[in-house]
Amino acid sequence: MKIIASLTLAAAALAVAAPASAQFAKPEDAIKYRQSSLFVMAQHFGRVGAMANGRVPFDAKVAADNAEVVANMAKLPWAGFGAGTDKGAPTKAKAEIWTEQAKFKEASDKLIAESTKLAAAAKTGNLDAVKTAFGATAGTCKACHDAYRAQ
Amino acid sequence: MKIIASLTLAAAALAVAAPASAQFAKPEDAIKYRQSSLFVMAQHFGRVGAMANGRVPFDAKVAADNAEVVANMAKLPWAGFGAGTDKGAPTKAKAEIWTEQAKFKEASDKLIAESTKLAAAAKTGNLDAVKTAFGATAGTCKACHDAYRAQ
Repeated sequence: MKIIASLTLAAAALAVAAPASAQFAKPEDAIKYRQSSLFVMAQHFGRVGAMANGRVPFDAKVAADNAEVVANMAKLPWAGFGAGTDKGAPTKAKAEIWTEQAKFKEASDKLIAESTKLAAAAKTGNLDAVKTAFGATAGTCKACHDAYRAQ
Repeated sequence: MKIIASLTLAAAALAVAAPASAQFAKPEDAIKYRQSSLFVMAQHFGRVGAMANGRVPFDAKVAADNAEVVANMAKLPWAGFGAGTDKGAPTKAKAEIWTEQAKFKEASDKLIAESTKLAAAAKTGNLDAVKTAFGATAGTCKACHDAYRAQ
Protein backbone atom coordinates (compact mmCIF):
# COMPACT_ATOMS: atom_id res chain seq x y z
CA MET A 1 0.00 0.00 0.00
CA LYS A 2 3.01 2.23 -0.47
CA ILE A 3 1.33 4.10 -3.31
CA ILE A 4 -1.77 4.83 -1.28
CA ALA A 5 0.39 5.96 1.63
CA SER A 6 2.49 8.26 -0.51
CA LEU A 7 -0.59 9.61 -2.24
CA THR A 8 -2.09 10.27 1.16
CA LEU A 9 1.05 12.11 2.19
CA ALA A 10 1.04 14.04 -1.07
CA ALA A 11 -2.60 14.91 -0.52
CA ALA A 12 -1.85 16.05 3.02
CA ALA A 13 0.96 18.22 1.70
CA LEU A 14 -1.36 19.67 -0.91
CA ALA A 15 -3.91 20.50 1.75
CA VAL A 16 -1.46 22.59 3.76
CA ALA A 17 0.49 24.09 0.85
CA ALA A 18 0.55 27.85 0.43
CA PRO A 19 -2.09 29.10 -1.97
CA ALA A 20 0.65 30.39 -4.27
CA SER A 21 1.71 26.87 -5.18
CA ALA A 22 -1.47 25.09 -4.21
CA GLN A 23 -1.19 22.53 -6.97
CA PHE A 24 2.22 21.29 -5.90
CA ALA A 25 3.55 20.00 -2.62
CA LYS A 26 6.71 22.10 -2.92
CA PRO A 27 8.38 24.49 -5.43
CA GLU A 28 10.81 21.82 -6.64
CA ASP A 29 7.83 19.67 -7.65
CA ALA A 30 6.42 22.55 -9.68
CA ILE A 31 9.80 23.08 -11.35
CA LYS A 32 10.18 19.38 -12.10
CA TYR A 33 6.62 19.31 -13.41
CA ARG A 34 7.07 22.15 -15.87
CA GLN A 35 10.44 20.81 -17.03
CA SER A 36 9.03 17.32 -17.42
CA SER A 37 5.97 18.37 -19.37
CA LEU A 38 8.06 20.64 -21.63
CA PHE A 39 10.52 17.79 -22.25
CA VAL A 40 7.77 15.31 -23.14
CA MET A 41 6.19 17.88 -25.44
CA ALA A 42 9.53 18.61 -27.12
CA GLN A 43 10.12 14.93 -27.86
CA HIS A 44 6.82 14.66 -29.70
CA PHE A 45 7.26 18.05 -31.35
CA GLY A 46 10.66 16.94 -32.62
CA ARG A 47 9.07 13.95 -34.33
CA VAL A 48 6.65 16.18 -36.19
CA GLY A 49 9.56 18.49 -36.99
CA ALA A 50 11.62 15.65 -38.42
CA MET A 51 8.85 15.10 -40.95
CA ALA A 52 8.17 18.80 -41.52
CA ASN A 53 11.88 19.32 -42.24
CA GLY A 54 12.08 16.29 -44.51
CA ARG A 55 14.55 14.43 -42.31
CA VAL A 56 12.30 11.41 -42.03
CA PRO A 57 9.59 10.31 -44.45
CA PHE A 58 6.18 11.84 -43.82
CA ASP A 59 3.79 9.41 -42.15
CA ALA A 60 0.43 11.09 -41.69
CA LYS A 61 -0.67 8.84 -38.83
CA VAL A 62 2.58 9.32 -36.90
CA ALA A 63 2.44 13.06 -37.47
CA ALA A 64 -1.17 13.26 -36.32
CA ASP A 65 -0.54 11.14 -33.21
CA ASN A 66 2.48 13.17 -32.19
CA ALA A 67 0.88 16.53 -32.93
CA GLU A 68 -2.10 15.56 -30.79
CA VAL A 69 0.22 14.81 -27.87
CA VAL A 70 1.95 18.17 -28.43
CA ALA A 71 -1.39 19.99 -28.31
CA ASN A 72 -2.37 18.18 -25.11
CA MET A 73 1.01 18.72 -23.45
CA ALA A 74 1.08 22.40 -24.44
CA LYS A 75 -1.62 23.11 -21.87
CA LEU A 76 0.29 21.70 -18.92
CA PRO A 77 3.60 23.39 -18.09
CA TRP A 78 2.17 26.77 -17.09
CA ALA A 79 0.65 25.58 -13.83
CA GLY A 80 4.23 24.87 -12.77
CA PHE A 81 5.20 28.57 -12.93
CA GLY A 82 3.19 29.68 -9.90
CA ALA A 83 4.37 32.31 -7.44
CA GLY A 84 7.30 31.11 -5.37
CA THR A 85 8.54 28.67 -8.00
CA ASP A 86 11.29 30.92 -9.34
CA LYS A 87 13.72 28.90 -7.21
CA GLY A 88 13.86 25.59 -5.37
CA ALA A 89 15.63 23.54 -8.04
CA PRO A 90 17.93 24.28 -10.98
CA THR A 91 15.91 26.27 -13.52
CA LYS A 92 16.51 28.44 -16.55
CA ALA A 93 13.29 30.34 -15.93
CA LYS A 94 13.96 34.09 -15.93
CA ALA A 95 12.61 36.42 -13.26
CA GLU A 96 10.57 38.23 -15.93
CA ILE A 97 8.12 35.32 -15.91
CA TRP A 98 6.87 36.52 -12.55
CA THR A 99 7.16 40.25 -13.20
CA GLU A 100 5.46 40.09 -16.61
CA GLN A 101 2.75 37.56 -15.90
CA ALA A 102 0.28 38.87 -18.47
CA LYS A 103 2.90 38.81 -21.23
CA PHE A 104 4.09 35.36 -20.17
CA LYS A 105 0.53 34.06 -20.26
CA GLU A 106 0.08 35.58 -23.69
CA ALA A 107 3.20 33.75 -24.86
CA SER A 108 2.03 30.43 -23.48
CA ASP A 109 -1.46 30.94 -24.90
CA LYS A 110 0.13 31.38 -28.32
CA LEU A 111 1.79 27.99 -28.05
CA ILE A 112 -1.51 26.42 -27.03
CA ALA A 113 -3.28 28.04 -29.98
CA GLU A 114 -0.62 27.21 -32.58
CA SER A 115 -0.15 23.62 -31.39
CA THR A 116 -3.91 23.13 -31.59
CA LYS A 117 -3.73 24.31 -35.19
CA LEU A 118 -0.78 21.97 -35.77
CA ALA A 119 -2.81 19.01 -34.50
CA ALA A 120 -5.68 19.98 -36.78
CA ALA A 121 -3.32 20.37 -39.74
CA ALA A 122 -1.73 16.99 -39.05
CA LYS A 123 -5.16 15.35 -39.01
CA THR A 124 -5.73 16.50 -42.60
CA GLY A 125 -2.70 14.47 -43.69
CA ASN A 126 -1.44 17.40 -45.77
CA LEU A 127 2.33 17.77 -45.39
CA ASP A 128 2.37 21.40 -46.55
CA ALA A 129 -0.20 22.29 -43.91
CA VAL A 130 1.90 20.47 -41.31
CA LYS A 131 5.04 22.38 -42.39
CA THR A 132 3.27 25.73 -42.07
CA ALA A 133 1.73 24.93 -38.70
CA PHE A 134 4.96 23.41 -37.42
CA GLY A 135 6.84 26.59 -38.30
CA ALA A 136 4.25 28.76 -36.57
CA THR A 137 4.34 26.57 -33.47
CA ALA A 138 8.14 26.52 -33.39
CA GLY A 139 8.01 30.32 -33.58
CA THR A 140 6.01 30.46 -30.35
CA CYS A 141 8.58 28.20 -28.64
CA LYS A 142 11.42 30.45 -29.76
CA ALA A 143 9.69 33.72 -28.83
CA CYS A 144 8.97 32.49 -25.31
CA HIS A 145 12.45 31.00 -24.85
CA ASP A 146 14.12 34.18 -26.08
CA ALA A 147 12.17 36.28 -23.59
CA TYR A 148 11.86 33.98 -20.60
CA ARG A 149 14.50 31.26 -20.65
CA ALA A 150 18.10 31.92 -19.64
CA GLN A 151 20.78 30.65 -22.03
CA MET B 1 16.65 30.07 -35.28
CA LYS B 2 18.19 28.02 -32.49
CA ILE B 3 15.03 25.95 -32.12
CA ILE B 4 14.89 25.06 -35.78
CA ALA B 5 18.59 24.18 -35.70
CA SER B 6 18.25 21.96 -32.66
CA LEU B 7 15.15 20.32 -34.08
CA THR B 8 17.07 19.68 -37.27
CA LEU B 9 19.86 18.11 -35.25
CA ALA B 10 17.35 16.06 -33.30
CA ALA B 11 15.75 14.98 -36.52
CA ALA B 12 19.11 14.00 -37.95
CA ALA B 13 19.86 11.99 -34.83
CA LEU B 14 16.48 10.29 -35.12
CA ALA B 15 17.19 9.40 -38.72
CA VAL B 16 20.39 7.55 -37.85
CA ALA B 17 19.26 6.08 -34.52
CA ALA B 18 19.26 2.32 -34.10
CA PRO B 19 15.84 0.80 -34.80
CA ALA B 20 15.70 -0.38 -31.18
CA SER B 21 15.35 3.17 -29.90
CA ALA B 22 14.14 4.76 -33.10
CA GLN B 23 11.89 7.22 -31.30
CA PHE B 24 14.68 8.74 -29.23
CA ALA B 25 18.03 10.23 -30.14
CA LYS B 26 19.76 8.35 -27.33
CA PRO B 27 18.89 6.01 -24.42
CA GLU B 28 19.14 8.79 -21.85
CA ASP B 29 16.43 10.70 -23.71
CA ALA B 30 14.17 7.65 -23.56
CA ILE B 31 14.83 7.29 -19.83
CA LYS B 32 14.19 10.98 -19.21
CA TYR B 33 11.05 10.75 -21.33
CA ARG B 34 9.51 7.87 -19.41
CA GLN B 35 10.46 9.39 -16.05
CA SER B 36 9.08 12.77 -17.10
CA SER B 37 5.78 11.43 -18.37
CA LEU B 38 5.33 9.24 -15.29
CA PHE B 39 6.06 12.23 -13.03
CA VAL B 40 3.57 14.47 -14.82
CA MET B 41 0.96 11.71 -14.66
CA ALA B 42 1.61 11.17 -10.94
CA GLN B 43 1.09 14.85 -10.16
CA HIS B 44 -2.34 14.82 -11.75
CA PHE B 45 -3.18 11.41 -10.30
CA GLY B 46 -2.28 12.71 -6.85
CA ARG B 47 -4.82 15.51 -7.24
CA VAL B 48 -7.58 13.04 -8.01
CA GLY B 49 -6.36 10.92 -5.10
CA ALA B 50 -6.50 13.85 -2.70
CA MET B 51 -10.21 14.09 -3.47
CA ALA B 52 -10.80 10.35 -3.55
CA ASN B 53 -9.17 10.08 -0.14
CA GLY B 54 -11.10 13.02 1.29
CA ARG B 55 -8.00 15.13 1.91
CA VAL B 56 -9.31 17.99 -0.19
CA PRO B 57 -12.93 18.82 -0.98
CA PHE B 58 -14.32 17.08 -4.06
CA ASP B 59 -14.54 19.38 -7.06
CA ALA B 60 -16.02 17.48 -9.99
CA LYS B 61 -14.52 19.75 -12.63
CA VAL B 62 -11.02 19.58 -11.14
CA ALA B 63 -11.30 15.81 -10.77
CA ALA B 64 -12.47 15.40 -14.36
CA ASP B 65 -9.75 17.67 -15.76
CA ASN B 66 -7.00 15.91 -13.85
CA ALA B 67 -8.29 12.42 -14.58
CA GLU B 68 -8.37 13.25 -18.28
CA VAL B 69 -4.71 14.27 -18.15
CA VAL B 70 -3.91 11.02 -16.31
CA ALA B 71 -5.65 8.97 -19.01
CA ASN B 72 -3.76 10.82 -21.75
CA MET B 73 -0.41 10.58 -19.97
CA ALA B 74 -0.89 6.88 -19.21
CA LYS B 75 -0.36 6.07 -22.87
CA LEU B 76 3.05 7.72 -23.12
CA PRO B 77 5.78 6.29 -20.87
CA TRP B 78 5.98 2.86 -22.50
CA ALA B 79 7.64 4.05 -25.69
CA GLY B 80 10.54 5.04 -23.44
CA PHE B 81 11.24 1.43 -22.43
CA GLY B 82 12.59 0.27 -25.79
CA ALA B 83 15.46 -2.18 -26.20
CA GLY B 84 18.76 -0.69 -25.08
CA THR B 85 17.19 1.73 -22.63
CA ASP B 86 17.89 -0.36 -19.53
CA LYS B 87 20.88 1.91 -18.90
CA GLY B 88 22.22 5.29 -19.98
CA ALA B 89 20.95 7.36 -17.06
CA PRO B 90 19.97 6.67 -13.43
CA THR B 91 16.87 4.45 -13.53
CA LYS B 92 14.92 2.23 -11.18
CA ALA B 93 13.68 0.13 -14.07
CA LYS B 94 14.35 -3.57 -13.39
CA ALA B 95 15.88 -5.89 -15.99
CA GLU B 96 12.65 -7.94 -15.97
CA ILE B 97 11.02 -5.21 -18.07
CA TRP B 98 13.08 -6.37 -21.02
CA THR B 99 13.00 -10.10 -20.27
CA GLU B 100 9.24 -10.18 -19.64
CA GLN B 101 8.04 -7.82 -22.33
CA ALA B 102 4.61 -9.39 -22.77
CA LYS B 103 3.93 -9.23 -19.03
CA PHE B 104 5.23 -5.68 -18.82
CA LYS B 105 2.98 -4.64 -21.68
CA GLU B 106 0.05 -6.33 -19.98
CA ALA B 107 0.80 -4.31 -16.83
CA SER B 108 1.00 -1.02 -18.72
CA ASP B 109 -2.15 -1.84 -20.68
CA LYS B 110 -3.96 -2.28 -17.36
CA LEU B 111 -3.00 1.23 -16.31
CA ILE B 112 -4.22 2.61 -19.62
CA ALA B 113 -7.53 0.75 -19.26
CA GLU B 114 -8.14 1.69 -15.62
CA SER B 115 -7.14 5.32 -16.06
CA THR B 116 -9.54 5.55 -18.99
CA LYS B 117 -12.26 4.25 -16.68
CA LEU B 118 -11.19 6.78 -14.06
CA ALA B 119 -11.55 9.62 -16.56
CA ALA B 120 -15.01 8.36 -17.49
CA ALA B 121 -15.97 8.04 -13.83
CA ALA B 122 -14.74 11.55 -13.08
CA LYS B 123 -16.83 12.93 -15.93
CA THR B 124 -19.99 11.62 -14.23
CA GLY B 125 -19.23 13.81 -11.22
CA ASN B 126 -19.98 10.92 -8.87
CA LEU B 127 -17.43 10.82 -6.03
CA ASP B 128 -18.09 7.17 -5.19
CA ALA B 129 -17.39 6.19 -8.78
CA VAL B 130 -14.19 8.25 -8.68
CA LYS B 131 -13.09 6.54 -5.46
CA THR B 132 -13.63 3.09 -6.94
CA ALA B 133 -11.88 3.90 -10.20
CA PHE B 134 -9.07 5.68 -8.39
CA GLY B 135 -8.44 2.60 -6.25
CA ALA B 136 -8.41 0.33 -9.29
CA THR B 137 -6.00 2.62 -11.12
CA ALA B 138 -3.71 2.94 -8.09
CA GLY B 139 -3.67 -0.85 -7.95
CA THR B 140 -2.22 -1.02 -11.45
CA CYS B 141 0.50 1.48 -10.47
CA LYS B 142 1.42 -0.62 -7.45
CA ALA B 143 1.40 -3.95 -9.25
CA CYS B 144 3.73 -2.67 -11.94
CA HIS B 145 6.04 -0.91 -9.46
CA ASP B 146 6.25 -4.01 -7.29
CA ALA B 147 7.26 -6.14 -10.26
CA TYR B 148 9.33 -3.78 -12.34
CA ARG B 149 10.65 -0.89 -10.26
CA ALA B 150 13.62 -1.25 -7.93
CA GLN B 151 13.18 0.12 -4.42
